[in-house]
Amino acid sequence: MAVTTEIGYTTPDAITVRGKNLSSEMFGHFDFIDMVYWLNFARLPEPREKAMANLILVAAADHGLTPSALSARLTFLGAPESVQGAVAAGLLGAGSRFLGTVQNVAEMYKLAAQDLDDQSSEAAVLECAGKLVQAYRESRRPISGLGHNIHVHGDPRVPVLRDISEQHGYFGKHWRLALAIPVVLEQTHGKRLPLNGAGALGAIIADMGLDGIFGRGLMLVGRAAGLVAHIREEAQTPIGPDLWDLVLDQDPRNVRASSGY
Amino acid sequence: MAVTTEIGYTTPDAITVRGKNLSSEMFGHFDFIDMVYWLNFARLPEPREKAMANLILVAAADHGLTPSALSARLTFLGAPESVQGAVAAGLLGAGSRFLGTVQNVAEMYKLAAQDLDDQSSEAAVLECAGKLVQAYRESRRPISGLGHNIHVHGDPRVPVLRDISEQHGYFGKHWRLALAIPVVLEQTHGKRLPLNGAGALGAIIADMGLDGIFGRGLMLVGRAAGLVAHIREEAQTPIGPDLWDLVLDQDPRNVRASSGY
Amino acid sequence: MAVTTEIGYTTPDAITVRGKNLSSEMFGHFDFIDMVYWLNFARLPEPREKAMANLILVAAADHGLTPSALSARLTFLGAPESVQGAVAAGLLGAGSRFLGTVQNVAEMYKLAAQDLDDQSSEAAVLECAGKLVQAYRESRRPISGLGHNIHVHGDPRVPVLRDISEQHGYFGKHWRLALAIPVVLEQTHGKRLPLNGAGALGAIIADMGLDGIFGRGLMLVGRAAGLVAHIREEAQTPIGPDLWDLVLDQDPRNVRASSGY
Amino acid sequence: MAVTTEIGYTTPDAITVRGKNLSSEMFGHFDFIDMVYWLNFARLPEPREKAMANLILVAAADHGLTPSALSARLTFLGAPESVQGAVAAGLLGAGSRFLGTVQNVAEMYKLAAQDLDDQSSEAAVLECAGKLVQAYRESRRPISGLGHNIHVHGDPRVPVLRDISEQHGYFGKHWRLALAIPVVLEQTHGKRLPLNGAGALGAIIADMGLDGIFGRGLMLVGRAAGLVAHIREEAQTPIGPDLWDLVLDQDPRNVRASSGY
Repeated sequence: MAVTTEIGYTTPDAITVRGKNLSSEMFGHFDFIDMVYWLNFARLPEPREKAMANLILVAAADHGLTPSALSARLTFLGAPESVQGAVAAGLLGAGSRFLGTVQNVAEMYKLAAQDLDDQSSEAAVLECAGKLVQAYRESRRPISGLGHNIHVHGDPRVPVLRDISEQHGYFGKHWRLALAIPVVLEQTHGKRLPLNGAGALGAIIADMGLDGIFGRGLMLVGRAAGLVAHIREEAQTPIGPDLWDLVLDQDPRNVRASSGY
Repeated sequence: MAVTTEIGYTTPDAITVRGKNLSSEMFGHFDFIDMVYWLNFARLPEPREKAMANLILVAAADHGLTPSALSARLTFLGAPESVQGAVAAGLLGAGSRFLGTVQNVAEMYKLAAQDLDDQSSEAAVLECAGKLVQAYRESRRPISGLGHNIHVHGDPRVPVLRDISEQHGYFGKHWRLALAIPVVLEQTHGKRLPLNGAGALGAIIADMGLDGIFGRGLMLVGRAAGLVAHIREEAQTPIGPDLWDLVLDQDPRNVRASSGY
Repeated sequence: MAVTTEIGYTTPDAITVRGKNLSSEMFGHFDFIDMVYWLNFARLPEPREKAMANLILVAAADHGLTPSALSARLTFLGAPESVQGAVAAGLLGAGSRFLGTVQNVAEMYKLAAQDLDDQSSEAAVLECAGKLVQAYRESRRPISGLGHNIHVHGDPRVPVLRDISEQHGYFGKHWRLALAIPVVLEQTHGKRLPLNGAGALGAIIADMGLDGIFGRGLMLVGRAAGLVAHIREEAQTPIGPDLWDLVLDQDPRNVRASSGY
Repeated sequence: MAVTTEIGYTTPDAITVRGKNLSSEMFGHFDFIDMVYWLNFARLPEPREKAMANLILVAAADHGLTPSALSARLTFLGAPESVQGAVAAGLLGAGSRFLGTVQNVAEMYKLAAQDLDDQSSEAAVLECAGKLVQAYRESRRPISGLGHNIHVHGDPRVPVLRDISEQHGYFGKHWRLALAIPVVLEQTHGKRLPLNGAGALGAIIADMGLDGIFGRGLMLVGRAAGLVAHIREEAQTPIGPDLWDLVLDQDPRNVRASSGY
């Protein structure tokens, strides 16, 4: 029975994180990405890894009134004293359909691409994509990482994420498989479902050799920063009460008092 | 009735975050701290602000088996499919006593130091600290940011946080007030309760001119990264089951089967 | 150092909850309210206590698309595999402004009514209410439990909650104080802010002699049941995607694709 | 686009829940189980359904220092002002391995037993169990609802849950399948893994004709009540700080100050 961690320990005089003194060796020497890598992998990131980790966090942060931002704002409305509760409520939607998808997609690509390597022929990659599509159809599971309710003609993030991946040497077999899946889907089933942001980020995670939990973890860290911005705006110029009214007004059976409050 | 945000909006072809195109102007150009500032303040950080933000995130990340790490690990034990739930459970303890304290402390310093400026005399700062101590005693509220259960002779993080703050020009009236409070407490009540990490981080937030919600928000973002490291370790070498057994063994009325499971 | 609980313990052959065998003495013998009282107070409820606990749970459950129901539904949209995450997100808004208010109100009434008893004169109750109103005005804190954004002329729940309280002998000094506060507010400040549901439930909790945490706890238990109904409806006939569209449509800068998805 | 619910609506004078007036028709008339059924199914429960719903809630409530109770207590330690956060943290572990298992098990039984009926022969039930065991082995998925780390010779709750189910006419094909699975496992693979509490509750949910989300929902509602008892005990006689020390003491690299705090 061992209830211990390799992450860190504490004495009256020092906090040690994976062998380094937090105060004297990390404060002022480590930036946040260094710390993320040190905590998770007990090593510092290479420059190209740092660039990619920053990219993933920036991509995860947020943009506008997504369901997770709405959930955080509606929670803050009832419990403004608990910023942590509003952030937690916003993160809890990072499941199999939004954000958390990155983990599922990365794991799906890794499993499917086991017999490929980065130099595999285009035909081999397409065959691998074909097998994946068929297996998912047979077990009636949806393939994550495809299509977008707003960016119906193609997610504008994907080509830029691809370019930056290539630039840093992370355009490998998983990215190639990810891009081959929509090609196969269109050829064999006539469906046009382009790769979306979560699919591209899952390919990045897999081509960087990172595990799926770490991938989902980066999404949560990045999104937390976006939620803080939404909560701060909500504290200053709240939309929660109007959002509630807007929803009630969708059903004529709800009647609001004429005089307001 | 306006249910809109200034943070961002979306069209089929572009995601815009505070006026900039996410894909073409931010991916590859912004690092994570740039993004945090852009989302929250619609501007990029100065270099010294970036250094301090990195410092705060590094300080918040985690070290060892804190209550928030334990809560995340125990949650993962029951719901390994929901990494977001484990991270949320770990963040929910960031309240008035741990981590979230930074917000409370920053707001307390700001309110108390309204009539000070960075050049106020030492006597004026001590007087201000004295008034704060007296007001909290009279209303029987504890003063946050003082003392530590392990670092009883002084929190080893505080002097380094102070040095780095000074180096970047953020050692102002709030830091001075924070350091004066333990002096007053020892002089007038004979109690030795040195400033702790949360107190120092609250002083930094206040001296950087940032609001309390943003301060607590940075703590949550940084801690999320530490929780991801704990969850990944838990997935690989779980301590949750042994921790549960260890707790049950504290009460002899609990009897575990000899054969294990 | 004792890490033990009086709530229960376990052996290979039996689970014991506060001295009773869960399987042989509680299953089939205890209803849920019995269990709530047994767990919390190590005794069974009197019939009138059971009636009131049922009333509180029924009142807390839910009605329509409240912020907590919306937050749960938006969370389910992203993570349908984690019903617990959607329920948790819905509960996290039960803070100082919604639902959780019951705890704050009960504690406020208890503190203010310390020198009253159930037979105090009407004048004494009004004087007590006057002092409370004045103290809150002086410290610029809002008085919880008053007013409602929809039920502007009076919350329809309050008279029925009062009648049932009286019927069971729980209309005491806290209820009387709660009803006196709006009278004082109207007389002295000309403001019409009738007692709301949370105020009435806080009065019930206080007049039943229960603590504030238990009061907030009952609200959370009851609301969880309502959230389950919302999540089940969301699983069958989702409104989350339309809600998201509805919100985006409030800002003309958001452009959705004409073809939908 | 319809953002409406059939659960309820509100006017200045009345709250309506599935067609009934909350104040005049439900307060004082409905007990909590009535409300749960009314909210979820728009009908009142039969007496035997009420008995079973009470049984499930009692079984879910809690017993001793489970991971969910520990997570709630550790969260309360940092954020005592947010009881809702501590309850939420405790519920977030109700996933595929603990508590939430009831949903997964109920859905597994329902799918597997589609071709059985309550009067199917014992041979047919065993054959169905055999197919399920084989299918799970082939896809290398664990079968939920079996075995227990403490109750290694058989979960003491199971026979009582079975008796009460029979007594109320809810011992049908799902219960029979649930009990046949361990028989098959022992015959064909020599493994002794008796049905556990979650397995029995899943069988009850399925034999009552309820859906899996409702099943997991009842577990969450019941557990919330147990968590409230733990949080109240933690507020009065905290074990959180000692639990933290106990954990730190497991690793000799952690050194606590001799003088305490």
